[in-house]
Amino acid sequence: MLYLVGMGLGDEKDITLRGLEIVRKCERVYLEAYTSLLSFGLSNNALSTLEDLYGRPVILADREMVEQGMEQILEEACTSDVAFLVVGDPFGATTHSDLVVRARKMGVEVKVVHNASVMNAVGVCGLQLYRFGETISIPFFTETWRPDSFYDKIKANRQLGLHTLCLLDIRVKEPSIESLCRGKKDYEPPKFMTINTAIEQLLEIEETHAESAYNEDTSCVGLVRLGSEMQKIVSGSMKELLTMDFGPPLHCLVIVGKTHPLEEEVLEFYAMSKACINAENCRN
Amino acid sequence: MLYLVGMGLGDEKDITLRGLEIVRKCERVYLEAYTSLLSFGLSNNALSTLEDLYGRPVILADREMVEQGMEQILEEACTSDVAFLVVGDPFGATTHSDLVVRARKMGVEVKVVHNASVMNAVGVCGLQLYRFGETISIPFFTETWRPDSFYDKIKANRQLGLHTLCLLDIRVKEPSIESLCRGKKDYEPPKFMTINTAIEQLLEIEETHAESAYNEDTSCVGLVRLGSEMQKIVSGSMKELLTMDFGPPLHCLVIVGKTHPLEEEVLEFYAMSKACINAENCRN
Repeated sequence: MLYLVGMGLGDEKDITLRGLEIVRKCERVYLEAYTSLLSFGLSNNALSTLEDLYGRPVILADREMVEQGMEQILEEACTSDVAFLVVGDPFGATTHSDLVVRARKMGVEVKVVHNASVMNAVGVCGLQLYRFGETISIPFFTETWRPDSFYDKIKANRQLGLHTLCLLDIRVKEPSIESLCRGKKDYEPPKFMTINTAIEQLLEIEETHAESAYNEDTSCVGLVRLGSEMQKIVSGSMKELLTMDFGPPLHCLVIVGKTHPLEEEVLEFYAMSKACINAENCRN
Repeated sequence: MLYLVGMGLGDEKDITLRGLEIVRKCERVYLEAYTSLLSFGLSNNALSTLEDLYGRPVILADREMVEQGMEQILEEACTSDVAFLVVGDPFGATTHSDLVVRARKMGVEVKVVHNASVMNAVGVCGLQLYRFGETISIPFFTETWRPDSFYDKIKANRQLGLHTLCLLDIRVKEPSIESLCRGKKDYEPPKFMTINTAIEQLLEIEETHAESAYNEDTSCVGLVRLGSEMQKIVSGSMKELLTMDFGPPLHCLVIVGKTHPLEEEVLEFYAMSKACINAENCRN
């Protein structure tokens, strides 16, 4: 049996009782390190905190293992109970549908333990979840690669008055270009996109397209470290948020669509001007 | 302090460790009964199971209490720690933003413990969450009231190739019309919409509008009892799903937009024809 267990957003205490029960009875426990590196700040210390709580050794499954080596995990799951822990929900921003399909082709039964993910926890900012349109991902621009397929999606959402959740790039265990040339694997340090970089890139693309999907006065909400004790929510125009230091990862951004009065009241509560006066109030 | 604690989707074991810790230290613990009545099947037995696990008495906050009487809970939270338990996530399909705003106006600090809700757990059906458009709600039609504002939303989603999550009506503690006339409160028995009724209503509205937003051959996914041991996922055309008995609540429906190959592969796995041969496989 393969158990896909969501760990939620904050730390090791965000696992559910059901999830913990499963982890404790599994013969092998893997933790997807790809996103957890950043969101759980998985130093060796944090890993042993996890292991202490779970009472099981936890094997880090890094990005390469997940992309290439899941065969091993799937084979183990044919004959024993294996838990694969995922930050957030197993079907959140990063999907594990391919894993489910491959498992089932091998005759491995799969059970899922759901948990919170950015896709639903973003509702904490006071915007109604059912008024969100398509979610977009904003990748890091490079000198030569400045993809802008998100622009039309934001535009379509805004034309319908819908909010847009922007997931910001995370780069973990990316082989450096030099190392690829040398044929030896060397990794770049982990890198996460800030709300500031996201807004800069968004405004650059608006300038190129000039179709008025949004502008620097467009209302947005910045959410950082969602679901953790260090969570912060700040609303303001793109121009305003651009000047703010949001601190450590992870960051995400919502481009606000048409709002109704209750939504406006909550956004007002998180307004940047107030946030600076009383930072405590920004935390939930 | 007011704690809004998400309980997840299945049963009492879907609370997180963080949530349980909070509940155990709170002086008063309320449970929102509006949706929990159906999804947790809250008989007296189930309530005492909850209380045993939490080690605290749990007070049922029914719909009237939530809509009118939250003052009492808020006042208690001014001077003591109060937990308000919500099925799913506190900012899931039913939003509690108004409660947060009112609490903060009274100077009550609010902390949120997130959990899975239908808004993210629906990803288990294999459709990518970020490819969902606006979420719609389908209310029970009556003889004289057949609202159809969801039609244009589905149409807009489908024109963009996006999937549509349809939340189906739940009617709990609705005063009966006769009792309103008599001036004495009598409640109708709880009532939840089945996938079958939802599809009938959808097809009726398509017939009226005739703008080809969808038709009986449109691909859909029915999800019932999401996140519980009795979960079932079945994909098929509207026409096909119409003939299926999905059993007890809660039901929800996804109208499928444009799919990519991996999504198709998962939908194929949940196809109705297969589901009937091997019902076990439909459970996650």
